[in-house]
Amino acid sequence: MSERNLTLLTDFYELTMMQGYFKEKDANETVIFDAFYRNNPVGSGYSICAGLDQVIDYVKNLHFDDDDVDYLRTTGMFEEDFLDYLRHFHFSGDIYAIPEGSVIFPREPLVKIIAPIMEAQLIETALLNIINHQSLIATKAARVVYAAQGDGVMEFGLRRAQGPDAGIYGARAAMIAGCIGTSNVLCGKMFDVPVKGTHAHSWIMSFPDELTAFRTYAKLYPNACILLVDTYDTLNSGIPNAIKVFKEMREAGIPLTFYGIRLDSGDLAYLSKKAKKMLDAAGFPDAVISASNDLDETLISSLKLQGATINSWGVGTNLITSKDCPSFGGVYKLAAIQDKATGKFIPKIKLSENAEKITNPGNKTIRRIYDKENGKIIADLICLVDEEYDTNKSLLLFDPKETWKKTHLAPGTYTMREMMIPVFLKGECVYESPRVMDIQKYCKSELATLWEESLRLEFPHRVHVDLSKPLWDMKNELLDSYHYHE
Amino acid sequence: MSERNLTLLTDFYELTMMQGYFKEKDANETVIFDAFYRNNPVGSGYSICAGLDQVIDYVKNLHFDDDDVDYLRTTGMFEEDFLDYLRHFHFSGDIYAIPEGSVIFPREPLVKIIAPIMEAQLIETALLNIINHQSLIATKAARVVYAAQGDGVMEFGLRRAQGPDAGIYGARAAMIAGCIGTSNVLCGKMFDVPVKGTHAHSWIMSFPDELTAFRTYAKLYPNACILLVDTYDTLNSGIPNAIKVFKEMREAGIPLTFYGIRLDSGDLAYLSKKAKKMLDAAGFPDAVISASNDLDETLISSLKLQGATINSWGVGTNLITSKDCPSFGGVYKLAAIQDKATGKFIPKIKLSENAEKITNPGNKTIRRIYDKENGKIIADLICLVDEEYDTNKSLLLFDPKETWKKTHLAPGTYTMREMMIPVFLKGECVYESPRVMDIQKYCKSELATLWEESLRLEFPHRVHVDLSKPLWDMKNELLDSYHYHE
Repeated sequence: MSERNLTLLTDFYELTMMQGYFKEKDANETVIFDAFYRNNPVGSGYSICAGLDQVIDYVKNLHFDDDDVDYLRTTGMFEEDFLDYLRHFHFSGDIYAIPEGSVIFPREPLVKIIAPIMEAQLIETALLNIINHQSLIATKAARVVYAAQGDGVMEFGLRRAQGPDAGIYGARAAMIAGCIGTSNVLCGKMFDVPVKGTHAHSWIMSFPDELTAFRTYAKLYPNACILLVDTYDTLNSGIPNAIKVFKEMREAGIPLTFYGIRLDSGDLAYLSKKAKKMLDAAGFPDAVISASNDLDETLISSLKLQGATINSWGVGTNLITSKDCPSFGGVYKLAAIQDKATGKFIPKIKLSENAEKITNPGNKTIRRIYDKENGKIIADLICLVDEEYDTNKSLLLFDPKETWKKTHLAPGTYTMREMMIPVFLKGECVYESPRVMDIQKYCKSELATLWEESLRLEFPHRVHVDLSKPLWDMKNELLDSYHYHE
Repeated sequence: MSERNLTLLTDFYELTMMQGYFKEKDANETVIFDAFYRNNPVGSGYSICAGLDQVIDYVKNLHFDDDDVDYLRTTGMFEEDFLDYLRHFHFSGDIYAIPEGSVIFPREPLVKIIAPIMEAQLIETALLNIINHQSLIATKAARVVYAAQGDGVMEFGLRRAQGPDAGIYGARAAMIAGCIGTSNVLCGKMFDVPVKGTHAHSWIMSFPDELTAFRTYAKLYPNACILLVDTYDTLNSGIPNAIKVFKEMREAGIPLTFYGIRLDSGDLAYLSKKAKKMLDAAGFPDAVISASNDLDETLISSLKLQGATINSWGVGTNLITSKDCPSFGGVYKLAAIQDKATGKFIPKIKLSENAEKITNPGNKTIRRIYDKENGKIIADLICLVDEEYDTNKSLLLFDPKETWKKTHLAPGTYTMREMMIPVFLKGECVYESPRVMDIQKYCKSELATLWEESLRLEFPHRVHVDLSKPLWDMKNELLDSYHYHE
């Protein structure tokens, strides 16, 4: 995104509000906004956050070009003094965030902006767009990789992605969450991740017959020889022809290092077991059996349960669009406004008839609590930034809604970790994103902090996200101060 | 897309196949590929095609930069002579397509490529990515606009779109299909379409109280004064405060031209009816009542059925992601290979155990048949390009699967239209895309050619897509020539 000026990638109302702040308020009033989400997508027990690196690029590049300003003038909604302000606009605030590849849970601030209200307001839309998209695909991909139980999962969805960026950054997110490669060459180039792929049906069809097509492919790519066997007839033509070619390679003394077949239609459990038998009988027990065709975590689990002998999975549409839940519901809410006189943040709250939609006020952060013995997550604690904890003392956690549900942690049995890191301070970027393959490693270690019960694909155990006592008190005081009647 | 080099936005296998053609075949062999789809998304009775303008940009800009070639070298899969070929690569073929905004049906070629096999192969992935995405969102948007029965529908989904492009080009597609505006400022700038929006909850929360926030907004934007009424309490605070401000405007002699409220939570049928009563009683019967919050065509229909008094709809997540069906299944299949000696195209077919997946061979086009009396579509006929028809003669149509289902059209009762237009000829672009708002007009006229029965949201009537007799014969001859056994 570093080449593109995405400053106008925003909702029009951000700009009308900005002009409002500019005209009618102290435009430099410092505020705090939290980006958070309310539910894990796809019924998952967790999510994986991703997209921070692109948010950083976006914020660094924020500026209104002359033609942006000229365009805004044509809408007839903006006055010259405001347009002139835009000409000199840049981001001057602080941003804190949970690092990419982290395991995250609902209601936690993923990104926190402390900035003049006009700046914080402008970046809402693009920030949500980027974080929502990549976190969605990373979460979906983590589930698919989990279902594959150690087999390699390849991201193959570019042609069905919702536009070029969805293909590029969706593949990036899928790599973060543990895919071993993507078919997307541009993603490979941009993020230095492995690209994979062999041939399509058109390769086969462009030759007079399947066997010639296979032979030619094997001659060209003996070290990456995965043959697509379903163009005409998988069991009667595709697999026998593939075996013929593998035999010819063996007889010619060509080392069979990485070779096998790809199934792209039909019943994958049945065909893979048949294929395995045929390959074994011909002396090719180490041939890769890869499969594609409408795969997702549910179908992979189901195929594995039936003993499918597939050991390499190419996952397209359902991963790159997160087909069964194609949006991640990240929102961006005002949490506090700084009092100019005292410098203190005055907490703000948004009410709702729906208790789930009431926001958490104040300048917050997240402390993650781990079981000292096995390193698994016990709970996350959303607390105010100035709270101090001592893990040598006992800790009482309570459910923020059903407060009688309490957990008591004995001294020395738990550890605590601050989850948010500074990314921008006074407009300067103070954080360098790791390489994608390093984020992948980190993400793997993050997934290892989840109990198996929370990793389960169906009806997973919900990880507790509690409010600290001071935050809970602040929230309830604010709620009481509104004479809210149903 | 014209600024970006998307040449590497392709699946890796396109490049390995290209090298294969380069090394082992006549790389200049001319082939025909069809892009088509098999099922309308979201249970729709039709689809709307979109994205051609971006495909044109992409094809015009196709070239491998030095750093693209350097990157490909690092994969270890490509030889220098092929990399050298890529350095000089450009598209030299023909492209035919159905114009954007057209009503389309399954199995029809939407885009047809006649080009050297290496070129045709390379562009598969990006072409599908672009057409699939925009056709999906245009189709979804057409349904939402239909459900709104003449009320304005605004596209508000940028923050939940699958990345920046999904927001930008999704909004473009939504505009093509009849939305009256988008919140996406960058889309507005790029495509000269109306942008819309007023303020968010944060505007209200940043003021000491709701009334002050409303007053300030009304002062700033008296001509576009839509007030968001659900920050604290819709019926007891939001609407009464909005009415107070409208009264103050009236008393101050400010003309109330475009004003009203926006509901963003709660039961929209109940709240809108209550709001209408309160606004009417206060003398504001022409106030706009707009609504947002998880809307789609089903919910809009349902709210209308219950007499909701909403007359302006802001549709976000469910439109921009096509939530209930987030992918459009466009595919790209080899249809013919040119015989060098004769110049004739040899038809090619892809078999499948699934009859639906068997492709249509040959150099094809689409003729649309209309009822001469009312201009409605009778059927589409996929035929070979050199077939000639005379509408003064009778025409016999038959179902390609159940061939005993026949329709006889009497001379002079029908008209015929060629649906595919030349877009590139010998690598030169010969087509200029209309402006988006002109495509919108065309799309409206296209939707008017559908019978109400096909526009119905639930279980619509399927429009017939038939094969011409010569095409049907060619296909069955090819099928018979394969000794295909189950």
